[in-house]
Amino acid sequence: MHVTPLRWTGTALELLDQRRLPDEETWVECRDAGSVATAIRDMIVRGAPAIGIAAAFGMALGALRGENLDRAAATLKAARPTAVNLAWAVDRMTALGQVSPRVMVAEAEGILAADIEANMRIGQHGAELLGPSITLLTHCNAGALATGGYGTALGVVRAAVESGRKVAVFAGETRPYLQGARLTAWELQKDGIDVTLITDNMAGHFFQQQRFDAVVVGADRIAANGDTANKIGTYTVAVLANAHNVPFYVAAPISTIDIACPSGASIPIEERSGDEVVETFGRRIAPLGVAVRHPAFDVTPARLITAIITERGVLRPPFTSSIDKAVRP
Amino acid sequence: MHVTPLRWTGTALELLDQRRLPDEETWVECRDAGSVATAIRDMIVRGAPAIGIAAAFGMALGALRGENLDRAAATLKAARPTAVNLAWAVDRMTALGQVSPRVMVAEAEGILAADIEANMRIGQHGAELLGPSITLLTHCNAGALATGGYGTALGVVRAAVESGRKVAVFAGETRPYLQGARLTAWELQKDGIDVTLITDNMAGHFFQQQRFDAVVVGADRIAANGDTANKIGTYTVAVLANAHNVPFYVAAPISTIDIACPSGASIPIEERSGDEVVETFGRRIAPLGVAVRHPAFDVTPARLITAIITERGVLRPPFTSSIDKAVRP
Repeated sequence: MHVTPLRWTGTALELLDQRRLPDEETWVECRDAGSVATAIRDMIVRGAPAIGIAAAFGMALGALRGENLDRAAATLKAARPTAVNLAWAVDRMTALGQVSPRVMVAEAEGILAADIEANMRIGQHGAELLGPSITLLTHCNAGALATGGYGTALGVVRAAVESGRKVAVFAGETRPYLQGARLTAWELQKDGIDVTLITDNMAGHFFQQQRFDAVVVGADRIAANGDTANKIGTYTVAVLANAHNVPFYVAAPISTIDIACPSGASIPIEERSGDEVVETFGRRIAPLGVAVRHPAFDVTPARLITAIITERGVLRPPFTSSIDKAVRP
Repeated sequence: MHVTPLRWTGTALELLDQRRLPDEETWVECRDAGSVATAIRDMIVRGAPAIGIAAAFGMALGALRGENLDRAAATLKAARPTAVNLAWAVDRMTALGQVSPRVMVAEAEGILAADIEANMRIGQHGAELLGPSITLLTHCNAGALATGGYGTALGVVRAAVESGRKVAVFAGETRPYLQGARLTAWELQKDGIDVTLITDNMAGHFFQQQRFDAVVVGADRIAANGDTANKIGTYTVAVLANAHNVPFYVAAPISTIDIACPSGASIPIEERSGDEVVETFGRRIAPLGVAVRHPAFDVTPARLITAIITERGVLRPPFTSSIDKAVRP
């Protein structure tokens, strides 16, 4: 049984509660747009493509329940600011205009199916960039859990394994939410793929020891010039990869590209509560009253990115032109 | 009352249990060399200078109790492999030869007093490198808690504050043991110094935002060529500092220099249990059975170090000659 973060029952959207992984596999049922928005904000579902798909079903649920769809769209879009797939999916649902709820549901199901297909193509394109025996570093979770299934960065891993390559993955634990420790380690282990967990601050040490053949990460939003917002810590990994001459690949569907953003400077970076840093584990890890910062994402400039792997092929620098060409219908 | 990690009562060494900070201030009493070695291995006391001082008192306790001092020395030296101050202090105690326990105690007290004095000199030399209003990034805890008192890297911070400079400190939380979150934030807050906690993987983002004027860290062992072993994650910060043209300072007493190590390649790097990575927070954060790495230190090559701040002055590249000159009696 393949890992999936969401299931459509016909009348409800079921979301795997990713906050409880790997301890428990609990499913949360959403029956209206508002509860989907809440689930996105609370990170029951996370990952740029997955929250886009969830929002599409949120719009379908709103239609099924006769909700005000303008309000539903606004609530869903406001749930998290950085990933562009959220707005992209909601806008695509809104663009249908006045249609039956059945058509809305079919559209959401189409978005889900297309995402999985895109991931498999991303995986194939990405695997072709890799040698026969490689160790990859990844950050956060750009896996099946972050998408409709199969994954973007971990889709590349899966496709490389399926093609017969010998693949070992190092997963940065990804503080503060530990998506690497809780989610990436979990889903790769489920698929029997060789995974080694490290704290984020060990990455430099293993680069120094020439342990990595490539880095592959996902994306929350890619600007028109290739600057890429992704989970906090990605930029640090990109600087390390550059300093050690290791290729740095971003794997993402075309829907993650925001052509309206000229560069990373115009991507909004969500600042979440500092409590999530100091109280993630049910125990406070720092003295009361200490100042804490919690930018949830950072921006990797295009100059540190070797290639962007999309379902339409591998985009190379200069990204302004390769992206422009790829996004045209 | 100043922060100190250890107290000598005349018949026992009391150690502040740093594993329980910041929640509780509990003191552990050691009455023989073996219990001091255990406390060092279990990280009740940590920080290169502090474990050296503790080991010196461990030898004094062994003498007071009529233990076999060769065996006591071997046990203490084996407690942790990377920090050279441990062997340095034990060797200094052993070099006294057959003397009365009273002389051994006086020698340990001398090592403690000299360490605090060295830290205050390190602080003064370091503060002179800084502008009137600065934001510093530090990693792990090279503070009062890691030394006899006052601190090395945080000694520079304290001296800068005492000299009237406006100082803000960003502390990386320092996974897996969280010395930054638990210890650095705690002791700076106690002294009323402006401190902001970040996860280690946020460092790159704040470098990118030009937030830091300098980095200052401690050291566990400095090779003859300037290569420096320090807490895991230090090398990543050094690469980031270099990529952003931010000065990277190592603050450490001369006793941290191991002239017998030609380069970082000959510094032993302690590999600790992976359980300390996945069970730090009283709850398992990764699926059972996943592979985990836990190198406790990394090596920053001399080329990434702007200067080494010692009690004998600021050492500049080429370090092979500046270190050689500094270590001569």
